[in-house]
Amino acid sequence: MADVLIIMGSDSDLPVMSEAAKMLDYFKIEYTLTVVSAHRTPERMVSFAKDALNAGYKTIIAGAGGAAHLPGMVAALTPLPVIGVPIKSSNMSGIDSLYSIVQMPPGIPVATMAINGAKNAGIMAAKMIGAFDKTVLQRVIEFTKDQENSVLEKAEKLERIGFKNYLENAE
Amino acid sequence: MADVLIIMGSDSDLPVMSEAAKMLDYFKIEYTLTVVSAHRTPERMVSFAKDALNAGYKTIIAGAGGAAHLPGMVAALTPLPVIGVPIKSSNMSGIDSLYSIVQMPPGIPVATMAINGAKNAGIMAAKMIGAFDKTVLQRVIEFTKDQENSVLEKAEKLERIGFKNYLENAE
Amino acid sequence: MADVLIIMGSDSDLPVMSEAAKMLDYFKIEYTLTVVSAHRTPERMVSFAKDALNAGYKTIIAGAGGAAHLPGMVAALTPLPVIGVPIKSSNMSGIDSLYSIVQMPPGIPVATMAINGAKNAGIMAAKMIGAFDKTVLQRVIEFTKDQENSVLEKAEKLERIGFKNYLENAE
Amino acid sequence: MADVLIIMGSDSDLPVMSEAAKMLDYFKIEYTLTVVSAHRTPERMVSFAKDALNAGYKTIIAGAGGAAHLPGMVAALTPLPVIGVPIKSSNMSGIDSLYSIVQMPPGIPVATMAINGAKNAGIMAAKMIGAFDKTVLQRVIEFTKDQENSVLEKAEKLERIGFKNYLENAE
Amino acid sequence: MADVLIIMGSDSDLPVMSEAAKMLDYFKIEYTLTVVSAHRTPERMVSFAKDALNAGYKTIIAGAGGAAHLPGMVAALTPLPVIGVPIKSSNMSGIDSLYSIVQMPPGIPVATMAINGAKNAGIMAAKMIGAFDKTVLQRVIEFTKDQENSVLEKAEKLERIGFKNYLENAE
Amino acid sequence: MADVLIIMGSDSDLPVMSEAAKMLDYFKIEYTLTVVSAHRTPERMVSFAKDALNAGYKTIIAGAGGAAHLPGMVAALTPLPVIGVPIKSSNMSGIDSLYSIVQMPPGIPVATMAINGAKNAGIMAAKMIGAFDKTVLQRVIEFTKDQENSVLEKAEKLERIGFKNYLENAE
Amino acid sequence: MADVLIIMGSDSDLPVMSEAAKMLDYFKIEYTLTVVSAHRTPERMVSFAKDALNAGYKTIIAGAGGAAHLPGMVAALTPLPVIGVPIKSSNMSGIDSLYSIVQMPPGIPVATMAINGAKNAGIMAAKMIGAFDKTVLQRVIEFTKDQENSVLEKAEKLERIGFKNYLENAE
Amino acid sequence: MADVLIIMGSDSDLPVMSEAAKMLDYFKIEYTLTVVSAHRTPERMVSFAKDALNAGYKTIIAGAGGAAHLPGMVAALTPLPVIGVPIKSSNMSGIDSLYSIVQMPPGIPVATMAINGAKNAGIMAAKMIGAFDKTVLQRVIEFTKDQENSVLEKAEKLERIGFKNYLENAE
Repeated sequence: MADVLIIMGSDSDLPVMSEAAKMLDYFKIEYTLTVVSAHRTPERMVSFAKDALNAGYKTIIAGAGGAAHLPGMVAALTPLPVIGVPIKSSNMSGIDSLYSIVQMPPGIPVATMAINGAKNAGIMAAKMIGAFDKTVLQRVIEFTKDQENSVLEKAEKLERIGFKNYLENAE
Repeated sequence: MADVLIIMGSDSDLPVMSEAAKMLDYFKIEYTLTVVSAHRTPERMVSFAKDALNAGYKTIIAGAGGAAHLPGMVAALTPLPVIGVPIKSSNMSGIDSLYSIVQMPPGIPVATMAINGAKNAGIMAAKMIGAFDKTVLQRVIEFTKDQENSVLEKAEKLERIGFKNYLENAE
Repeated sequence: MADVLIIMGSDSDLPVMSEAAKMLDYFKIEYTLTVVSAHRTPERMVSFAKDALNAGYKTIIAGAGGAAHLPGMVAALTPLPVIGVPIKSSNMSGIDSLYSIVQMPPGIPVATMAINGAKNAGIMAAKMIGAFDKTVLQRVIEFTKDQENSVLEKAEKLERIGFKNYLENAE
Repeated sequence: MADVLIIMGSDSDLPVMSEAAKMLDYFKIEYTLTVVSAHRTPERMVSFAKDALNAGYKTIIAGAGGAAHLPGMVAALTPLPVIGVPIKSSNMSGIDSLYSIVQMPPGIPVATMAINGAKNAGIMAAKMIGAFDKTVLQRVIEFTKDQENSVLEKAEKLERIGFKNYLENAE
Repeated sequence: MADVLIIMGSDSDLPVMSEAAKMLDYFKIEYTLTVVSAHRTPERMVSFAKDALNAGYKTIIAGAGGAAHLPGMVAALTPLPVIGVPIKSSNMSGIDSLYSIVQMPPGIPVATMAINGAKNAGIMAAKMIGAFDKTVLQRVIEFTKDQENSVLEKAEKLERIGFKNYLENAE
Repeated sequence: MADVLIIMGSDSDLPVMSEAAKMLDYFKIEYTLTVVSAHRTPERMVSFAKDALNAGYKTIIAGAGGAAHLPGMVAALTPLPVIGVPIKSSNMSGIDSLYSIVQMPPGIPVATMAINGAKNAGIMAAKMIGAFDKTVLQRVIEFTKDQENSVLEKAEKLERIGFKNYLENAE
Repeated sequence: MADVLIIMGSDSDLPVMSEAAKMLDYFKIEYTLTVVSAHRTPERMVSFAKDALNAGYKTIIAGAGGAAHLPGMVAALTPLPVIGVPIKSSNMSGIDSLYSIVQMPPGIPVATMAINGAKNAGIMAAKMIGAFDKTVLQRVIEFTKDQENSVLEKAEKLERIGFKNYLENAE
Repeated sequence: MADVLIIMGSDSDLPVMSEAAKMLDYFKIEYTLTVVSAHRTPERMVSFAKDALNAGYKTIIAGAGGAAHLPGMVAALTPLPVIGVPIKSSNMSGIDSLYSIVQMPPGIPVATMAINGAKNAGIMAAKMIGAFDKTVLQRVIEFTKDQENSVLEKAEKLERIGFKNYLENAE
């Protein structure tokens, strides 16, 4: 049984939203991933949102762009926490997506990530679950440690070979 | 039977949205006005939107603020034209409302008015109906003429008494 | 006799604005399409706007970019409803076009679409006409249904083959 | 033992942030509330963030304004989920607070609420906990139901007495 | 015969636009001041713009707010230079007015002032005329000198009495 | 003797600013064009600005990008009218240039053009001169007429061959 | 002999800019404070900037609003470091001031503070001097310590009496 | 012993931040350059910031993008002056970086440069040091002189060969 439901407004959002799925794979958290459009399939959206609790999900990740209504509408229809990912739009660089998702009225919160922040949505889902599941918590702690080590290695290399060599190597 | 359905996300939007009703009164167009929240009453929103065509409405005016999903969600659920009014929000002056309403994806248009532009929503509904109803059309033409005359009278007065007297009179 | 007049400020807007025409072709609605510049051909603009009612149009679609005055000026000169399309500009990404079109003063509404939202302008015109014409209404309902089915097919495929295969197929 | 830690960058944020506490009171969730400044008490911030897991908290709510670093820095120092509240700032209306909190880099998510959205931060914490705690879940469901009923009552009254009487009563 | 035509979209712009008139009074330049609305009196606007050259004006000052089309439309209809004043709007603080006026397409310039910059519009008109009229030029040079002296006196006083006394005196 | 002085903050602005020179060539107005940086050659800037009147110029066109101080500083140092061109910047698309030029304080106006609006700066200079010089005025009127005819020809062609052929021809 | 020169574009900036002076009083650093306008007294501005090094100043604090050219122009005319304070403007809340000051081109840096951040300008001057002067350094360290203690006391009180009492006491 | 510490949040910032190092090389000022992430290596950040004074640095240059917390957090942990460089971000063009760095609260200043303004960060560090070190001061003065001469040469060439030849040569 999956713990996380990942939905997006269009299959054109998949290159971004798949980053959330990859993080859940990394944390070994089961998930369902599909397309649910608030505007083009409103009834599918209502039934997905209303069924999510009984389907056993612990959290929902919803990504959408432009006048992005999917995360907020799903949040209105489920007692589960909803994580919103504003997709970068072609004309407003995602500012429209961000405001449409984050500026929810009192009573219906959406846990908003950065523009195109699908990777962080996966990590946030893991942190939510990790707060109640020691195995997942341990993987979050290790992820953070690995991330720190990766920076430390780069810093060590940069200090060792100097910025000119580092930049040349990067080319 | 009413021709226009006016809905808003919260009764706090009423001071703004009542301007649309007043314009419809002026044009002698029947309307229904009520509160329908996309986020707090999502099922009521779905049923209002889906029933609007059979209820005989010709157009729907929907006002909302912040992450304003009401106009776009209703537009997704009805073949009728939807006029959206972005309500001025306390923290972003309605820029969030405007972007949430106007930046709809291809396939689901919302006819967006200016921030707090409820009066214009009423006039737009009258223009839509007037294109098919000569009586309403005539009232729109008269409204425009009256509006023009009101400016001409002010201009004439300003030219006659000069701007200093005009400003003093205005106080 | 055409039902919709499509005008744009420059022939450089044609790649965007032709999307409105294509939608009207889809809905089998007759239209006239031409270039009318508020700034470069102001007298042509005035005569087009003032003649539109007698020419039998039911609605006007006007697209323009930058300091985009065409939709608002036409709206000032006709009792017909005007749908405005803010064209994406090279220096401000269309924010200037959007504000110039949507922020109309009380009395002269423009039904504003998203930046580059010409396809939606065509659909909005069809919805306005469909409210009074059962044949067009039926086509709008079918369009919405087709649109829904297209998403459902993609969702089914994505769920069936998984996001990795789906992304590879898309390349 | 408290489940939620509520911190804010300054006691001037308390009128806003106390809304989160009030919601947790409503949901009967225990919390600790205090002032922790990333900039003025950086060491206190580090120790609060690092101790939060062992102290038994399930989630952290952090509010800050301007160049708001508290939520992101705490998120960097704990495996627990962090909910960020951008406080409305005097010179930029909270846009600076919002961008400083929501635009976190990959690896360190902050669940961002609307500007001044402290009430929603409390509800989001309850939703996170409710996903694993049936008693809290039940209270979230009831809260949503109450919220819906409150809108329905207002809508019924508005429909019954008409908008003019409703506006007069509101004065 | 007046050298400058001052027009504005609404008599509500008069408190701002009268600053232009006061500067022209200071420079002893004759002017006509009245209300001409691009949207509410489009035909009056066309005739004012087309007659301005023959009426002997040397420059036109036009102020408008929101979707501010007056300066650009007048500029399209006259070979005279047009100075545009974006009036501060209630919902967007005049950003909409500014973009609607300054972002004119190639071919039809508007000399745009700051938001509410009507005083500067009067000075700019005087500078344009002064380039060809030694008497007006001399008054512009004196105005600049007076302006400089006014700052020098304040600076001298501030240095003499210190900022604490200066602030106390100001109260 | 030249009538217009064209200056720019950097030779990297030349591709944009040369459009002003080309328009003045078209209008047969003499000009001087060079680089004057407010920040890198402040003393050259002061002497150019202070000498401009005696050098016989009637107007100054100044282009600059980013924190664009050249137009405003020159305007502070000459009684001649200054036309400012905000150059599109790499990081803020010229919004910084626009605000730095247009938001001048009372007393020191700059006639601001659109972002990268150098062509319009040349036309504005011609309009300023044309108000006092019938030969230049006649050329401005002809330019406007040519511009109108160019649009009318395109409109005629578009109406004749239809938008599909027109778009194909454009490729 | 004073170490810091504090200048501002207008005496209306004094209520904000005096905060810089108060901080320098606190750090016992000598300063000169006066009004120097880039636009209204450009020659005074040039001579102040060019004389600052020989006058013995170590740093210059310059505050200005709107199209704020003072900090950047002074920075162009002195090898001393310049700290810029964007003053909150009435129409754009200081966004124009901020962009005009911070977006300096390569070669002429201005150390930009927050909008209305004059207190921080004083502290930054002290930090610059403290890097070379142990007495001032010590005072900066003490200031930071006092600042920390002030937050700790408030936090302790808030934890002790609870947020409801704290808010009541604050009234 | 190095005088300047240059740190950045990620090695992806190196192409921009190396411009600061190159300027310090030009001014013959010793520096340390490395990667320190506020979010991925928070403890390394704390120790670098707290050790900087004793390590003998006179100033710190810190660059970061998005929700850029590094400059402000370092400033909170050291009495040394911190120069902040907002790195251009992929989704918001660095507006998020700029606001996260410049809008620091009273008490903790960051000397903010333009977006991607790393070259200016190096020059600002030299100006800070030059105020107390005559050798460095002399190099700053020479740099400014060279910069001026470079513009003068370009201006002389442009005036000599004309803008058309100049543009052709540039290709």
